[in-house]
Amino acid sequence: MPSSEVVKQLEYLFKPEAVAVIGASRKPKKIGYEIVRNLLEYEYQGKIYPVNPKAEEILGLKCYKSILDVPGRVDLAVISVPAKLVPAVLKECGEKGVKNVAVISSGFGEIGNVELEKEIVDIARKYGMRLLGPNIFGLVYTPTRLNASFGPRDVLPGNIAFLSQSGALGIALMGWTILEGIGLSAVVSLGNKADIDDADLLEYFNADPNTRVILIYMEGIKDGRRFMDIAKKVSKNKPIIVIKAGRSEKGAKAVASHTGSLAGSDVIYSVAFRQSGVLRAISFEEAFDWARALSKLPPPKGENAIILTNGGGVGVLATDACEEYDVKLLDMPEDLMEAFRKYMPPFGSPKNPVDLTGQASEEAYRGAFEEALRDPRVHSVILLYCETIITDPVLLADVIIDAYHNAKEKKPVVVNFVGGEASDKAMRKLEREGIPTYPTPERAVSALAAVYRWARYSGHI
Amino acid sequence: MPSSEVVKQLEYLFKPEAVAVIGASRKPKKIGYEIVRNLLEYEYQGKIYPVNPKAEEILGLKCYKSILDVPGRVDLAVISVPAKLVPAVLKECGEKGVKNVAVISSGFGEIGNVELEKEIVDIARKYGMRLLGPNIFGLVYTPTRLNASFGPRDVLPGNIAFLSQSGALGIALMGWTILEGIGLSAVVSLGNKADIDDADLLEYFNADPNTRVILIYMEGIKDGRRFMDIAKKVSKNKPIIVIKAGRSEKGAKAVASHTGSLAGSDVIYSVAFRQSGVLRAISFEEAFDWARALSKLPPPKGENAIILTNGGGVGVLATDACEEYDVKLLDMPEDLMEAFRKYMPPFGSPKNPVDLTGQASEEAYRGAFEEALRDPRVHSVILLYCETIITDPVLLADVIIDAYHNAKEKKPVVVNFVGGEASDKAMRKLEREGIPTYPTPERAVSALAAVYRWARYSGHI
Repeated sequence: MPSSEVVKQLEYLFKPEAVAVIGASRKPKKIGYEIVRNLLEYEYQGKIYPVNPKAEEILGLKCYKSILDVPGRVDLAVISVPAKLVPAVLKECGEKGVKNVAVISSGFGEIGNVELEKEIVDIARKYGMRLLGPNIFGLVYTPTRLNASFGPRDVLPGNIAFLSQSGALGIALMGWTILEGIGLSAVVSLGNKADIDDADLLEYFNADPNTRVILIYMEGIKDGRRFMDIAKKVSKNKPIIVIKAGRSEKGAKAVASHTGSLAGSDVIYSVAFRQSGVLRAISFEEAFDWARALSKLPPPKGENAIILTNGGGVGVLATDACEEYDVKLLDMPEDLMEAFRKYMPPFGSPKNPVDLTGQASEEAYRGAFEEALRDPRVHSVILLYCETIITDPVLLADVIIDAYHNAKEKKPVVVNFVGGEASDKAMRKLEREGIPTYPTPERAVSALAAVYRWARYSGHI
Repeated sequence: MPSSEVVKQLEYLFKPEAVAVIGASRKPKKIGYEIVRNLLEYEYQGKIYPVNPKAEEILGLKCYKSILDVPGRVDLAVISVPAKLVPAVLKECGEKGVKNVAVISSGFGEIGNVELEKEIVDIARKYGMRLLGPNIFGLVYTPTRLNASFGPRDVLPGNIAFLSQSGALGIALMGWTILEGIGLSAVVSLGNKADIDDADLLEYFNADPNTRVILIYMEGIKDGRRFMDIAKKVSKNKPIIVIKAGRSEKGAKAVASHTGSLAGSDVIYSVAFRQSGVLRAISFEEAFDWARALSKLPPPKGENAIILTNGGGVGVLATDACEEYDVKLLDMPEDLMEAFRKYMPPFGSPKNPVDLTGQASEEAYRGAFEEALRDPRVHSVILLYCETIITDPVLLADVIIDAYHNAKEKKPVVVNFVGGEASDKAMRKLEREGIPTYPTPERAVSALAAVYRWARYSGHI
C-alpha cells in the first residue's frame, strides 16, 4: 500500500467519527466494559456503539445485537470476543463497511494459533479493512480524546506517540506516564502485528501534526527491510526512539516465550537502527528521558554546549557525561568568560562548566543564562542547580522560564535540580513550561545527546 | 595513627557529649545560626554551647564569649568564623581540650591559601585534635540526632553513611535523600580533607554498628595507597560505593577548578577500586540504588537468580540487564518449572523469567514468590510487576512483604513495579518494609548485581 493510502486509512483509526465496541460488557473489570467506560469518560466526542446480543444498554448507551444493526457509519470497530468468534465478527464488520478494526482478543499466533490469525488477516484484506492486533489492549489518541483501551484513562495530552509490542508493559507505562507528567499524542498496542505494524504507524505519525516524537517498545519485526526504509525517511523528519528488548542471548529466548517474535541478531538491529537514524534506548526510563527532550526542544544550530551550575560537583559529573555521550563543550572564548564573571564571586569559575558557586542567586542565574541564550557561539545549555539556602528553587524556575521564553533565539536547554521537595516542585513547573528536567546531571546530558544525535542525522547541524 | 585510635577519637566526633558552635549567629540564614538551629531542632540530646563574643543568647541558649569560658567538656567544636581567625580559635580549642573540630570556614587550600591550611592542621596536631574540613557544610549522625550542618534538617535515619567531597552537591543530596525516603546513618562533608580523610572515615564506619554501607562522592584522594589498603580491608566487612567524578579529560580539568584535587588517571582509579572491592558507581542515582539494596538485603548464598513477572516485556528487559550486569539466571530444573506452573494459566511460561502473565492475581504472586523463597536452588529474586486492572498494587505489596518476612531463609529480593500512583505507593510501602524497589527492571537488576559483586568480593559466595 503506498504511504499516502496508509495515512489516509489510518486517519479513521485515530480520528474515527464513530466507534463500535463488539463484545461490550455490562460487568465492571471486564475488558468489554472498561473500553466503553474509557471511551465515555475520556470524553470521546464521536458516536459510541456498544455491540452485545444480550444487552439492551451499556453504561447508558443503546446496545446493538450486531454491528450490522448499527444505524450510521463506523470507522473503527474494537473487537473483544473469544478468538473463535472473531472471523464471523470481522465479516460483519466488512459487510458494514468498517474501515479499521482493533482486535483486542487473544488466542491467535501468540499461542500457536497461526491459522486463525491468518484467517482474520485474510478477511480484513478482503474487505479492505486495516487490522490492529490481535492480542492488544487497544489504542489512545489524545487529540480526539479517543481512549479505546482497557488501560488507564487519564492519559495526558502531548506530542509523543508511544507504540508497544508488549501488552502488560504498555498498559503499565500508560499509568507511569500519567504519574510522571509525560504527555502523549497516542498509545498504540501492537500485539501480534498481524496486519498493521511499526512501519505503517511510522508512516502515520510522520504525517500527524500532533506528533513530534515516535517511541516504540519492540521485541521483533517481521519485515526488517521495510521498517528500515521507512524509518530512514521518517527519521529525517521526526525522531524515532526504539527500545528493542531481547538484546542478550537469554533475553532473545525470553522474547520467543513472550510474543513469539524472533528477536534476531542484536548486532544487526543495532546497525540497522544506526543506519536509519533510529535512536536506540536501553530502558523505558532512558527512552522517555530522550522523548521529553526531543518533543519539547528545538534542534540545536551547532555543536557547542555550555554547562551552568552553582555546584562544582554536578558540573564535573555533567562534564564526564558530555564526554561519554558525545556532547561537545564549548571551548570558552576569553570575552565570554569575562561576560560570565559578572555573575559570580571571585572564586567562581567562568570556564566550561561555568561555576556560579553556591552563592549564586536567582539573578546571577538569570544573568548567566541570558548571556548563554544570547551568545551565538553557544548552541545549547545544560543548566544545573544544587538546592541551597540562598536560592528558592521555585523562584529560580520562574527566572529560567522567563529567560527561556523571552530569548530571541530558541536553543535546546536541559535542566537538573538536585534537592528536596522544593526542587522537585520547581522541576515539575519547568517541565510544564516546556523545559525538560532530569533527576541527575547524567540523565540531562544523555537527553541532550539524543537531541544532538537526531539533529546530526536529520541534517540540522 | 593506628585504626583503633582513629575510631576511638572519632567516636567523639559522631557521639559528642557536648558541641560548641564557634561563630554562632543570631541572624537567620547565616551559617552560624543555621547550625545551632539544626542542632536544636533535630533534637540533639547533648549540650550545645554557642560561642560569639557579641551575643548573650542565641536561639534561647546561653552564649559564650570564648570556648575557654564554656563550663564543661567539649568533644566537638564546629567553627564558622572568617578563615584568618581560625588559627586563634583552634588554639583556644586546643587549650580547652576539645577532641575534634569541624572547620566550616572556607578560604584555605581551595583558593590557594595552602599556608593557612597547613597552619591549622599543625595547630590541631599539636593539641591532638582531629580536624574535619576546612570548607565544609558540617556533619550529621542520625543515631545521636546530631545535625551539625547548615544543610537540610530532617535527614531520615538509616544505615548508609554518606561522605561528600563536594559541598553544594552534598547538601543538595541530603535534601534529595529525604525526598526519596532514603535513610542515612551519617552525612559527612569532607571539604579540603586537610586532616580527616576518606580512609579515616572508612575505619570509623567500618566499626560503627549503625552503618552497613559507606557511600562516597569523591573528586580526588591524596594518599591513594592508604585509601586502597584500608578499603581492601573494610570492603570484606561492609560494602563501599564510590562515585569518582572527573572520569573524562575535561571532567578532570573541571575537578581541578572545583576542589583543586588532582583527579588523576581514571584507569588507575578504576583498577584500584576493583582490587580493593570498592563498587564504583557513575551517578548518584546509581550509587544510592545500590546502597539501598546493600543496606537492606542479606548477601545471597549462591549465584542463581530468578525473575518473577506478570509482564513478558519487563521480564525480557530484566533478562537483558542480567546479562549486561552479570547476574546469573537459574537454569530452571523441570520440577521447579512444574511447581511454578501451579500459579499461572496454560499460556504462562515457567522458564526463567517466570511469566505468571497479566492474569496473575496477588495470590498467584504469593504462591510463586513463596516457592522461590523456599527452594534452595534459588538464591535471589527479581520480582517485577506491571500494573493491571486485575491486581491492586498495594495489596500485592502486602503479600510480598508478608511472604518475605515469613520466609525461613532470607534471600535478597529486588522489586520493580511499573505503573501509576498506586504502584508508586506500593513501592514506597515495600521500601519501608526493607524491600528495595526500583522504577525500572534495569535499575533493580543493577542493584542486585551490586549485591552480588560485593558478596563475591567479601567471600559470601
